[in-house]
Amino acid sequence: MISPYPHLIDLNDYPVSWWKQVVDLGEQIKNHPEIYAGACSNKIMATLFYEPSTRTQMSFQTAMLRLGGRLIGFDNPANSSVSKGETLKDTTKIVSGYADILVMRHPVAGAAKAAALSADCPVINAGDSGHLHPTQTLTDLLTLQCEKGRLDHLTIGLCGDLINGRTVHSLLKAMSCFEGNHFILISTPELGLPSYVKDILNASNCDFEEVSSLEEVLPKLDVLYMTRIQQERFASREEYLAQKDTYILTTKKMQAAKKDLVVLHPLPRVDEIEVALDEDPRAMYFKQAKYGMYVRMALIITMLNLDTHTTLLRGKTFPGAVCKNPNCITHTETYLPKSFISLGNSLLECEFCNERLLMEH
Amino acid sequence: MISPYPHLIDLNDYPVSWWKQVVDLGEQIKNHPEIYAGACSNKIMATLFYEPSTRTQMSFQTAMLRLGGRLIGFDNPANSSVSKGETLKDTTKIVSGYADILVMRHPVAGAAKAAALSADCPVINAGDSGHLHPTQTLTDLLTLQCEKGRLDHLTIGLCGDLINGRTVHSLLKAMSCFEGNHFILISTPELGLPSYVKDILNASNCDFEEVSSLEEVLPKLDVLYMTRIQQERFASREEYLAQKDTYILTTKKMQAAKKDLVVLHPLPRVDEIEVALDEDPRAMYFKQAKYGMYVRMALIITMLNLDTHTTLLRGKTFPGAVCKNPNCITHTETYLPKSFISLGNSLLECEFCNERLLMEH
Amino acid sequence: MISPYPHLIDLNDYPVSWWKQVVDLGEQIKNHPEIYAGACSNKIMATLFYEPSTRTQMSFQTAMLRLGGRLIGFDNPANSSVSKGETLKDTTKIVSGYADILVMRHPVAGAAKAAALSADCPVINAGDSGHLHPTQTLTDLLTLQCEKGRLDHLTIGLCGDLINGRTVHSLLKAMSCFEGNHFILISTPELGLPSYVKDILNASNCDFEEVSSLEEVLPKLDVLYMTRIQQERFASREEYLAQKDTYILTTKKMQAAKKDLVVLHPLPRVDEIEVALDEDPRAMYFKQAKYGMYVRMALIITMLNLDTHTTLLRGKTFPGAVCKNPNCITHTETYLPKSFISLGNSLLECEFCNERLLMEH
Repeated sequence: MISPYPHLIDLNDYPVSWWKQVVDLGEQIKNHPEIYAGACSNKIMATLFYEPSTRTQMSFQTAMLRLGGRLIGFDNPANSSVSKGETLKDTTKIVSGYADILVMRHPVAGAAKAAALSADCPVINAGDSGHLHPTQTLTDLLTLQCEKGRLDHLTIGLCGDLINGRTVHSLLKAMSCFEGNHFILISTPELGLPSYVKDILNASNCDFEEVSSLEEVLPKLDVLYMTRIQQERFASREEYLAQKDTYILTTKKMQAAKKDLVVLHPLPRVDEIEVALDEDPRAMYFKQAKYGMYVRMALIITMLNLDTHTTLLRGKTFPGAVCKNPNCITHTETYLPKSFISLGNSLLECEFCNERLLMEH
Repeated sequence: MISPYPHLIDLNDYPVSWWKQVVDLGEQIKNHPEIYAGACSNKIMATLFYEPSTRTQMSFQTAMLRLGGRLIGFDNPANSSVSKGETLKDTTKIVSGYADILVMRHPVAGAAKAAALSADCPVINAGDSGHLHPTQTLTDLLTLQCEKGRLDHLTIGLCGDLINGRTVHSLLKAMSCFEGNHFILISTPELGLPSYVKDILNASNCDFEEVSSLEEVLPKLDVLYMTRIQQERFASREEYLAQKDTYILTTKKMQAAKKDLVVLHPLPRVDEIEVALDEDPRAMYFKQAKYGMYVRMALIITMLNLDTHTTLLRGKTFPGAVCKNPNCITHTETYLPKSFISLGNSLLECEFCNERLLMEH
Repeated sequence: MISPYPHLIDLNDYPVSWWKQVVDLGEQIKNHPEIYAGACSNKIMATLFYEPSTRTQMSFQTAMLRLGGRLIGFDNPANSSVSKGETLKDTTKIVSGYADILVMRHPVAGAAKAAALSADCPVINAGDSGHLHPTQTLTDLLTLQCEKGRLDHLTIGLCGDLINGRTVHSLLKAMSCFEGNHFILISTPELGLPSYVKDILNASNCDFEEVSSLEEVLPKLDVLYMTRIQQERFASREEYLAQKDTYILTTKKMQAAKKDLVVLHPLPRVDEIEVALDEDPRAMYFKQAKYGMYVRMALIITMLNLDTHTTLLRGKTFPGAVCKNPNCITHTETYLPKSFISLGNSLLECEFCNERLLMEH
């Protein structure tokens, strides 16, 4: 199924060269914001946030305002009439009649793609459950490009909950496209990187190692990407108490790190980075949030000026095949085609949430 | 009681020629939006939504933004300090000191008129309970003018719950002012048009017929206005099951309809129009929502440039006369004058909610 | 601790001459708003309202819009991700990376000062619990300057709950800085002005008297500042019933007042001023709300153009000293320094909430 508009649903729908263009434009905007102050005047962006995400929404809103554009939208459909039985399709049709570009956040996987199917303007995915969050990855790329001067030949530590952290998976996939990067995965055995991401790293000949001590590898790193481990992710309360300090970044540990280390965090942080570290010039997580604004400015300009169609569905429906992911948008929006890509050997992949399904014969 | 500002509380406060002017301006804006892009720069619109209505609010907001104007307002007073004991009068006085035009949605009948009494700027009624919703009617008129090329000599089917549907009553009253329109009322006997609307149609020599089958009359129609019948409106569950399909519009039924039929719906729809019909070029309900934005642009420009007084209350108080409509604004805003119009024979009509009252002697 | 930005946390951080400048600019803007219509174009204001305060928020928002600026923010963190465990510091760091100026309302005393400590832009305190609300006082000053033509040699009655009314305390402190003002404090003995405010009045040689009857002193007043007495503030239900009418301003009582009396109220009002009085030209409370918008315009321009550092913390931590005010921000934001000013004799004052603490030895 082809939409006559460009959309950003999944970063992997575009080649690496396109990412680079967006990131380069983001850097250019950061250096000369005044050139772009009127780039979107007379344009309206709708932020459809089906779950609250204040930081992401404000980042998109500021980006549009700094381009001279204007805003409509909602941030809490529980309080709005949108929640009263209207389909995602109808809301998307109506709002894309008002606005020039939609930004959608949704608690169900595949929602942004579903919206793109009926939207009469470009759609940007601002997070569809834990599934995809492409503008976070673009944020990370712009931060590295500006703060390290390059996206290649970096030793990058990723610390925390690596099994559930989609932000981390997406960054790893993205950085594996650039030459010479070396990854150090710092986690407990239970919270290590899932094998499907390792497969991708291996397929692109990417160098990685798995360790359990942040302190031990810190001196080697050019970049440290911190994430939170929730207490309930540990195998037991005993393990939590025994291990938690291992994955907390402190000013003391930082003494052994490189002088030009860059510490990143997707935010919000809880206690995995000591507050006292904020004064350290290597702590880049607040600056990273600001890069997020610049890269979203670049993305909005790009999407409003792209003159391309988007192929949203490439597969087909298979008799009897229904996605087994309970949090897939095909279950709540029942008019959607249950479209799958065949991976061979009776293996299907849902085109909305990417969950795989083994067809029985 | 006279307000020094123009207000749009009830479409019937203005002559048909005025409606036509607003609709004509809406068509002009639709065709040349760039001419009006700065028509309201330096103006501020406040949207005071005492109940959430995301679509209507976004329509007004987009309209103002596309005129170069700016926005303040609220959409959920339950979460706001406005709900804490402040009268409608005080909120209106304060906000009309900030803004150049107020748009009000309220769950109580007569609220917009009550606000207009104290506002220091024009007030637009964006729906006061089920009582009045003049901008929906203007939307319908602009849609017909643009899609049918005229507002007269049309065969118009209205299908669904005609007894409770204020949108339908208002459209009928409006279209009966144009020559040669023929109405086909499609409903169950229990959900047929109330007699007071039939009286208006008869008084204006309007042709109408009542039928119970959508399928039967569909081929004759130039316009089909669909509305929803809620399950609980049917006489019994048996009747619901027996009849519901009669009032659902399907692609199959549409095969017998005219090639230039225009299908309208005030939205949100639930299941009274098949999703598959959305692809049919005769399905105009999403386009209708966009016409709503254009006609609201026309209305905002009109209200900001009208230099007229508005007579809001023409009647007077009668000793002992109190409106019997429990959802009338005179009950919650007790400082309001209990003002009635005498219809003769001891019959009074509340000037806020239009409920009638027989005075006892 | 010094912030590189200017902030308005407490009016007393600035000299009276600075207040006068802001008020004078507010008057200038009121008289020639067109001159300032683009004063903040390309600037973004974030309104961070940790508790809803619709009037104050709309006043600030309108002020910024009328200067050509743009808005981001939130008004109900309970529904937003900001409430999910993120510190005030982190939210402030992120949002001050997006916006050029922050306006903060918070239910905890000292929150605005805490935010200013980490903000990368100016912060305006829009009310931190009942602690400080400097823009209300500026509003009152501008109203008096415009409506009375001067800020000195006025006989000012303050009526209602004077013990709890921070608005009243702040206005008294401010007006005591101008020559020749005479204050008449109208309240019950239980709800009279706290002695610390009387000390300030005495210290500045200010003339004041305490009375219990509004009616008696009304003819003498140039200005009457009304506030609400909540029923539960009276000593008993009997006293409430016996006394409540004494503190209600009616059209009847107003007959004895001066022709150029100015009646003010911080709003919202409940029933302490009769609705019928609104028509009296001496009733200035709605106009006062509009002056609030103009003085906020003046303040935003001032803060965006001030090129000063702000000393936010002048004191130090004392071993074992912890603020005893349960509603002080140092308890919820635990990373904050527990900083006190020593007043001598083992008396300390918390630098966030101004609560005093006697150190034990």
